[in-house]
Amino acid sequence: MTDIKLHGFWYSPFTLRVKWTLKLKGIPYENIEEDRYNKSAQLLQYNPVYKRTPVLVHDGKPLCESMIIVEYIDEIWPQNPLLPTHSYHKALARFWVKYADDTFSAVASLVRSSNGEEQEKAIEKIWEHLKVVEDQCFGDGKNVFGGDTINIVDIAFGPLITLLVVLEDALGVKILDDEKFPHLHSWYNNFKDVPIIKENLPDQDKMVAFIKVFREKLIASS
Amino acid sequence: MTDIKLHGFWYSPFTLRVKWTLKLKGIPYENIEEDRYNKSAQLLQYNPVYKRTPVLVHDGKPLCESMIIVEYIDEIWPQNPLLPTHSYHKALARFWVKYADDTFSAVASLVRSSNGEEQEKAIEKIWEHLKVVEDQCFGDGKNVFGGDTINIVDIAFGPLITLLVVLEDALGVKILDDEKFPHLHSWYNNFKDVPIIKENLPDQDKMVAFIKVFREKLIASS
Repeated sequence: MTDIKLHGFWYSPFTLRVKWTLKLKGIPYENIEEDRYNKSAQLLQYNPVYKRTPVLVHDGKPLCESMIIVEYIDEIWPQNPLLPTHSYHKALARFWVKYADDTFSAVASLVRSSNGEEQEKAIEKIWEHLKVVEDQCFGDGKNVFGGDTINIVDIAFGPLITLLVVLEDALGVKILDDEKFPHLHSWYNNFKDVPIIKENLPDQDKMVAFIKVFREKLIASS
Repeated sequence: MTDIKLHGFWYSPFTLRVKWTLKLKGIPYENIEEDRYNKSAQLLQYNPVYKRTPVLVHDGKPLCESMIIVEYIDEIWPQNPLLPTHSYHKALARFWVKYADDTFSAVASLVRSSNGEEQEKAIEKIWEHLKVVEDQCFGDGKNVFGGDTINIVDIAFGPLITLLVVLEDALGVKILDDEKFPHLHSWYNNFKDVPIIKENLPDQDKMVAFIKVFREKLIASS
């Protein structure tokens, strides 16, 4: 029998990418909740380079980096495929997956921001990224996001927008403005209501409480 | 007839990844040399998000981001395959490709360094990355790099080490120390002597001259 373990953090957008993928594919797995401040010896052994989650362990073999894991799962378990089959569309999807990771860097600056100026600067940067997505990924028969039929770009961006919504609440700011980003806003509202996503979305209040404490610790230690 | 155009910079490690891939596969293409300071309207139209090279245009359809292009080429033209066929080995290869891109960020800091302190800090950071590669990618039956049989990890790291060697010369520093990094050093010496690589490696002196002027402009404009 196949043995699948996911080492992750319940609140992490990167873990969420893998979790949603496993759930979408209907793959049973054992969840191993890691402690960010006291990582397991196994995690450090599985990911000696980055020492971070998520790590998927498939029949004893560890895989690191969320979107590499997602592609691996999509290849091994082809049901409900996430990547397009056509090579050109696949390359386009991978381009936007990479753009999601670039956008995460801007979001990380907001998480770390310790004063109003840093916060404003980080939000401006995030807006630049969201504007690119808003302008380039919607309309004119562009099918970058999947929507109801979840694809790999949904999986890459979904947890990022989830984190943004949590940050909006925790910081009392508006980021995913529906007037600034009407398509993106409507895509996310649709995406988070897809049953498998909704059922496996961490509790919003719990995430807001977590991110507040996390930010305090981060700012205190920097 | 297939129409392939490569928009690139002759000295760019990212362009070099695609160029070497095309040459390894024996794919004829038209080279379109871009001017970094006056990019073509076509390039900006093909890559509106990053406005950068390389862009591969295959039968009129543009592809961006060097390693996404390399995977695309490998999929369309399967001769001399670069990616392993086994899903797990493929995921491992992609992990190291991503690590090469992370390492590029450290190298970019060295390119931008405008004084001795910044230079030292950048070199320390590069060494941290090379140490990880030295320790994790060689020995004990690990076949991360291909060597004579070029694989995707060679393609990802080769141009980066080429740039480091150019920077060593331009800045009068030692980075790829053969005592610090014996395996990596020996891998690169072997790699750059593979005929198809050697024949398509830009002239070292020309690159050193270019990077000196490039750094001056970069530092003056920052």
